[in-house]
Amino acid sequence: MNTIGTLYRFTGFGESHGAAIGGVIDGMPAGVKIDLDRVQAELARRRPGQSAITTQRRESDTVEILSGMLDGVTTGCPIGFMIRNENQRSNDYGQLGEAFRPNHADYTYTAKYGLRDHRGGGRSSARETATRVVAGAFARQALEHFGIKITAYTSQVGPISLDADYKTLDLSLIESSPTRCPDPVKAEQMEQLILQVKGEGDTIGGIVTCVINSVPAGLGEPFEGRLGAKLAAAMMSINATKGFDYGTGFNGVGLRGSEAIDRFIPGQAYPAHTMANHSGGIQGGISNGEDIYFRVVFKPVATLMQDIETIDSEGRPVVLKARGRHDPCVVPRAVPIVEAMAAMVIFDALLINRAARI
Amino acid sequence: MNTIGTLYRFTGFGESHGAAIGGVIDGMPAGVKIDLDRVQAELARRRPGQSAITTQRRESDTVEILSGMLDGVTTGCPIGFMIRNENQRSNDYGQLGEAFRPNHADYTYTAKYGLRDHRGGGRSSARETATRVVAGAFARQALEHFGIKITAYTSQVGPISLDADYKTLDLSLIESSPTRCPDPVKAEQMEQLILQVKGEGDTIGGIVTCVINSVPAGLGEPFEGRLGAKLAAAMMSINATKGFDYGTGFNGVGLRGSEAIDRFIPGQAYPAHTMANHSGGIQGGISNGEDIYFRVVFKPVATLMQDIETIDSEGRPVVLKARGRHDPCVVPRAVPIVEAMAAMVIFDALLINRAARI
Amino acid sequence: MNTIGTLYRFTGFGESHGAAIGGVIDGMPAGVKIDLDRVQAELARRRPGQSAITTQRRESDTVEILSGMLDGVTTGCPIGFMIRNENQRSNDYGQLGEAFRPNHADYTYTAKYGLRDHRGGGRSSARETATRVVAGAFARQALEHFGIKITAYTSQVGPISLDADYKTLDLSLIESSPTRCPDPVKAEQMEQLILQVKGEGDTIGGIVTCVINSVPAGLGEPFEGRLGAKLAAAMMSINATKGFDYGTGFNGVGLRGSEAIDRFIPGQAYPAHTMANHSGGIQGGISNGEDIYFRVVFKPVATLMQDIETIDSEGRPVVLKARGRHDPCVVPRAVPIVEAMAAMVIFDALLINRAARI
Amino acid sequence: MNTIGTLYRFTGFGESHGAAIGGVIDGMPAGVKIDLDRVQAELARRRPGQSAITTQRRESDTVEILSGMLDGVTTGCPIGFMIRNENQRSNDYGQLGEAFRPNHADYTYTAKYGLRDHRGGGRSSARETATRVVAGAFARQALEHFGIKITAYTSQVGPISLDADYKTLDLSLIESSPTRCPDPVKAEQMEQLILQVKGEGDTIGGIVTCVINSVPAGLGEPFEGRLGAKLAAAMMSINATKGFDYGTGFNGVGLRGSEAIDRFIPGQAYPAHTMANHSGGIQGGISNGEDIYFRVVFKPVATLMQDIETIDSEGRPVVLKARGRHDPCVVPRAVPIVEAMAAMVIFDALLINRAARI
Repeated sequence: MNTIGTLYRFTGFGESHGAAIGGVIDGMPAGVKIDLDRVQAELARRRPGQSAITTQRRESDTVEILSGMLDGVTTGCPIGFMIRNENQRSNDYGQLGEAFRPNHADYTYTAKYGLRDHRGGGRSSARETATRVVAGAFARQALEHFGIKITAYTSQVGPISLDADYKTLDLSLIESSPTRCPDPVKAEQMEQLILQVKGEGDTIGGIVTCVINSVPAGLGEPFEGRLGAKLAAAMMSINATKGFDYGTGFNGVGLRGSEAIDRFIPGQAYPAHTMANHSGGIQGGISNGEDIYFRVVFKPVATLMQDIETIDSEGRPVVLKARGRHDPCVVPRAVPIVEAMAAMVIFDALLINRAARI
Repeated sequence: MNTIGTLYRFTGFGESHGAAIGGVIDGMPAGVKIDLDRVQAELARRRPGQSAITTQRRESDTVEILSGMLDGVTTGCPIGFMIRNENQRSNDYGQLGEAFRPNHADYTYTAKYGLRDHRGGGRSSARETATRVVAGAFARQALEHFGIKITAYTSQVGPISLDADYKTLDLSLIESSPTRCPDPVKAEQMEQLILQVKGEGDTIGGIVTCVINSVPAGLGEPFEGRLGAKLAAAMMSINATKGFDYGTGFNGVGLRGSEAIDRFIPGQAYPAHTMANHSGGIQGGISNGEDIYFRVVFKPVATLMQDIETIDSEGRPVVLKARGRHDPCVVPRAVPIVEAMAAMVIFDALLINRAARI
Repeated sequence: MNTIGTLYRFTGFGESHGAAIGGVIDGMPAGVKIDLDRVQAELARRRPGQSAITTQRRESDTVEILSGMLDGVTTGCPIGFMIRNENQRSNDYGQLGEAFRPNHADYTYTAKYGLRDHRGGGRSSARETATRVVAGAFARQALEHFGIKITAYTSQVGPISLDADYKTLDLSLIESSPTRCPDPVKAEQMEQLILQVKGEGDTIGGIVTCVINSVPAGLGEPFEGRLGAKLAAAMMSINATKGFDYGTGFNGVGLRGSEAIDRFIPGQAYPAHTMANHSGGIQGGISNGEDIYFRVVFKPVATLMQDIETIDSEGRPVVLKARGRHDPCVVPRAVPIVEAMAAMVIFDALLINRAARI
Repeated sequence: MNTIGTLYRFTGFGESHGAAIGGVIDGMPAGVKIDLDRVQAELARRRPGQSAITTQRRESDTVEILSGMLDGVTTGCPIGFMIRNENQRSNDYGQLGEAFRPNHADYTYTAKYGLRDHRGGGRSSARETATRVVAGAFARQALEHFGIKITAYTSQVGPISLDADYKTLDLSLIESSPTRCPDPVKAEQMEQLILQVKGEGDTIGGIVTCVINSVPAGLGEPFEGRLGAKLAAAMMSINATKGFDYGTGFNGVGLRGSEAIDRFIPGQAYPAHTMANHSGGIQGGISNGEDIYFRVVFKPVATLMQDIETIDSEGRPVVLKARGRHDPCVVPRAVPIVEAMAAMVIFDALLINRAARI
């Protein structure tokens, strides 16, 4: 299914070598003033060719809004939008023919649909994430009405890990490095590693950490609607993701219950606050008013600048020659995508929560 | 929302101290022979009081099927079922009154709904997971028609980690230990740790690993329907989960792309197989025919057998006395819940995939 | 799918000869005081055996609430409920065996599911409508918080039609006649007709008209969410319905545009009111603040007290002997079902509308 | 919500005076060859300006497919499409300003969303139905793989009614008249009436009848998924509709049960057939293999070529001068829209039904 959300719903379309990608934002409340320059600026953060450590493909990724707005304000009606594909007839993929690239969706899509889009990754390509950035940018501007802020950054590239608590970091530095790591020393190391990996025709993965400030207590629903589940689903729907955790997550597996306690600060109950935030802002599936923070793992890009042995659609061995222009590491460009998905989830939860009480 | 799934849908109800928990399985195809003894046996694996390392509360957890079956076979109509709560008026919770237990949902549910179920955790209690086990047990039996098998086990308790590849383990030993760890040495260590933690009135978390064999290539959909996203959402909707990863996941973040390659075995294309399975059986969001394997982190149980300082609904400091009977570690009892959620996701994906081609 | 609604969702289960029927009400806001005696009273209006013109089967239809309430107030968590079937082993259906009753679902369900519930109508039986009445009774009590009132009545039985505008009728008389027709003269004629038809071993259909007062302007969504579409879907999901219209509907097909105009009353805009209400309270798919009124056609009951020629599952001709106890006319018992479905639709729309503006 | 369908899902966007209208078809199976000329031909049947009895506005309504197809075949991925609005800055609506046109959505949309699209009907305009025609044209071509055929025609305009059973009509004549009535005599009368009404600056409504041939037995689900409910919802989501019935519908309300019986033809059971088809091809909510036929009522167009007294957004009386170019009767142009919605419903049901049995 190519739709995400219950009240704030985004339906995306488009593949890497078709005419356009785009989507429909449905359920955006009326009366939200949208700064389209800021939407475009979010796309620029995701765009290929933005720095020496990303792919050198260039696409302007200009979004055209087709409906749902009047004089810069949302009308309550669905917002259709489109981004033209500029490289839709690239020859870089011509060789692909019938070979299945390892770790791509070539084989799985063919097995599923019974046919092959020989032009490239098609719908499985990360190209579609540009449409998520647009839908998230709208949600983000709506969330600002409620003072909610979403900030993601690169916290790991290969073995180089920024272990510091996000509260000790200067998050204003995120955009100072092409890596989107806010620690200048780690950022420099990550950048050098990515350039080295690129020089070797290889790729590397990493981790994006995301922090959401000022979420009111009460967002999220029981069972399927637990906020952690909704965030996990949204993040794991992004291409190349392999894992998600929030709060103490995988790293906290050694903690005792007595160590993981988030004691309440006495004084008042609504809102109450806790001394620690091991819970990552979510308790019993519902936001508790503390910062929500979580991590998303991205695998190394599957396309290498090396010759790769694989098979074709008859199962015969073939060698794929290194071609094209690809990212040595997707993590820096994934940062705005993670923010976009988080914005959609939180805004949807906020709207749903309006029905929690009579 | 208390419904999960698109074609195989489960809607659950019930809280820890109400009359009953239960649910509706909708979309189960007609003609599936169901062995209800096996459904009940799955509940027994989740039931409290099953061993010295679980809570000593005792509930028989007898499921009553109310509709949707005839002569032991599903009819295609919704399957309503119910499990009576036997301890519904426990005094153990009497003291709770208006205190907010730390790391529970007491505060978040009250903040959301504007009222408090003073009898205990209500809908946020892990009691509701018994209904998931029922719905999963039905899906599991349906999956057996397609040769698909789901096996989960305890792979970590606190710092004691079973790092071995699942393929090197004898998974027939899982039920030999109350820990549900298939490695006898690690299982013994885990059991001792849990008993020690219990003796200290404390709790400990851990990790469940799950393996799904013989999934055909092609399950999962683009975008929101990526199989990794669906599994993540299902797992993170279970109480006390903090993280999810599949394939190389968080541990593979240091791998180069050239190291993470799952090369195809030449010879045939449908089905094709890969030499390694770093991808965890999912590529581009779609199953590739290899084993699917993933991990789920569970936090330490929030209820300690220690006095806890907290606040009441007026924000005043209060001390909660240690009472009741609780699990020192939920991981062993979480194993059948993880399997149940996996079964629902895979069966739903299998049904959806019937519409992939004309 | 056995679920209806977006935010106020009802999932039903159960068949005529199973252990129980019931369902889950999900999305009911917290804090609604529910009078369960009134829920039970709604069931009594639908119950068989309530008068000489209904089937003489007797079922007490006692609803048991299993979850989601505390001290008579909704908690925000799903409300599970159940009604035991008392006649579940009736011999009246023994003869059915493999014969397909004409105009029933015997053939269509068997064609669809590949098996036959030889005990009777199963899920296609009108028995399941009792669960709708429960879910609707909850919604109705929630709607009373907003001053919204729903009233249905029998407006036609066979050729006997109550053509008068609902505003000229004394709707307090509805329950004065077993026909639920508020016009005493027409009610008497309808009752006599039903008794006559019953005496002939035949059946007759009719029309239910429903009026919803005090709906605020703004309920309903564009496109799929148009309020007329939602009401139509809900009504046409009731057993034995054959048609739906609202406002001038089928009867207004001869009107010119100039005759069908609902002119606004000058004076104020919010709320504005119209002089006529040909639109039936819905314009452009959205409520306009006037009364919503609509009609639902019910076909004659398919089960006759006559011998019926039909075929068995091998296509061989067989004769079904007249047996059992059936309604000569379902319309009087359908009145509370129509109200229940309307209550669910309007309450769902009201909750969704909370997200219409930032 | 601007999405319709469960597996074959259509999400539409666009308003009358925005940049474009369009949508996303999600869930189209892979491997369906689509003749885009036929899609465009369906749009031509809906297009304004096609004859003397429709509005003389002219829009070419050229659809551009943006994704989801390769070499004329569907790929399984979402199909995005777009139709540019050519008249988006029409001055005809300049006068509207703040006046609420009676029987339009001006007031209800403003009441709902808190703002006014002064350019015209916005999302409530029938302009959006062009996107339905596109999505329906895709579904129709997919249905042809299964031999299913959908044919609608004008059966009533004002008081001029074509009462003949559809089986006695020569449906190949539908496109011979601009009225889309297959009976030449009635068609001529209808055309004259529409021209007369147009000359008077007035408008008139009517009825579209639709017939679906060769639907296999088994489509439709219990409860919310009843095929009659799904068709009703789809039809009543079309602009200007006021009612829906199928089979004997409103006209059969006087029938006895013994008159309405559809007796099976002895001989074979799978498929079985019935002698009569009062049921309209649906029994117990499930298709029975006979023709499905239903009717949809359209009200007279609300925009008259007469001066209209109304109010403005302050509640003050104003007079709207007759302007613009509007349809005197929408029924002929509604015929392809009804077919399109029917195609989507039936194809969705067909895909869902693949999950009915193990």
